[in-house]
Amino acid sequence: MNICNYTLEEYIAIVKSFHGSAAPGMVIGGYMVDLALKNTPEGEFFDAVCETSNCLPDAIQLLTPCTTGNGWLQVINLGRFALTLYEKYQGKGIRVFIDSAKIETWPEIKNWYFKLKSKKDQDSQLLFEQIKEAGPGICSFQSVTVRSQFLEKRSKGNIAICPLCKEAYPVKDGDMCLGCRGDAPYL
Amino acid sequence: MNICNYTLEEYIAIVKSFHGSAAPGMVIGGYMVDLALKNTPEGEFFDAVCETSNCLPDAIQLLTPCTTGNGWLQVINLGRFALTLYEKYQGKGIRVFIDSAKIETWPEIKNWYFKLKSKKDQDSQLLFEQIKEAGPGICSFQSVTVRSQFLEKRSKGNIAICPLCKEAYPVKDGDMCLGCRGDAPYL
Repeated sequence: MNICNYTLEEYIAIVKSFHGSAAPGMVIGGYMVDLALKNTPEGEFFDAVCETSNCLPDAIQLLTPCTTGNGWLQVINLGRFALTLYEKYQGKGIRVFIDSAKIETWPEIKNWYFKLKSKKDQDSQLLFEQIKEAGPGICSFQSVTVRSQFLEKRSKGNIAICPLCKEAYPVKDGDMCLGCRGDAPYL
Repeated sequence: MNICNYTLEEYIAIVKSFHGSAAPGMVIGGYMVDLALKNTPEGEFFDAVCETSNCLPDAIQLLTPCTTGNGWLQVINLGRFALTLYEKYQGKGIRVFIDSAKIETWPEIKNWYFKLKSKKDQDSQLLFEQIKEAGPGICSFQSVTVRSQFLEKRSKGNIAICPLCKEAYPVKDGDMCLGCRGDAPYL
């Protein structure tokens, strides 16, 4: 069972290099992206929504043209392990999610998905075997339409120099930059 | 002038493959990450903050172990083209930013940075030449300490099945998942 243009072993090597480790969510995420791509019309320009910030954004970034920095991937953290690829102008897309009913037959995947065991008590070899055997079989997909407000492309608008930090910032943010207004995460 | 372990040409090839194009912000971003890494103590575990969602997150993801999906990169969009690498337990770090004063000698970089010309009126060859010549010379850095609330690691806590969508979600989000509460971006 390949993941997009990669064998599982090739994909895992890329995952280790980018993500740091072949986490279960990265392997399942690979099958999910593959399933979404197989159900997305070819030749379309699509964007991605990821409903969790854990693992899955990296599977999307490695397997599709959508990345955090090019703006085609939005992480909207709803706490669900799901992703949507959608046609970027009309918003019609395919949402892929882990199907709670389907994982009933894969006890170690269930333990991982519902956090029924702590990480140290997980049988990671068994988990990986079940993920590999189940492949996309633990997922379902549905047609969705992304709301128009999420399709609008961000534009920074005009740029000015912040009177406090002297760095460039979008004028629409007000008379100083958001960092100097108190949103910077620094002491 | 190399960018981390890559020649500029090697870096640009990786950028094209991941980000889609060798955008000016990706090349400048490469020099910025390189500068930050050179001023970060070796052997430390560090996390990253990126103050813009444009381009720079991808330079960080390509050149450091920090990615969106492994949780080591946080994009806090302050509209400033700046990044911070910080020691993940104490928060001490280095913030690298484009220095408005230093770009005065690079007119095409200034045009790009302050959006003084529309994209179609930019002289992209001249811009790229100036970026290459300037390298990290248009940047400055400063020591910062990341506030403790940003150092705390996210934990999803206990997981339950959402009574509406039947998918797994963090119990801390309430009696149904955030998607079913109305935060999902779908019609």
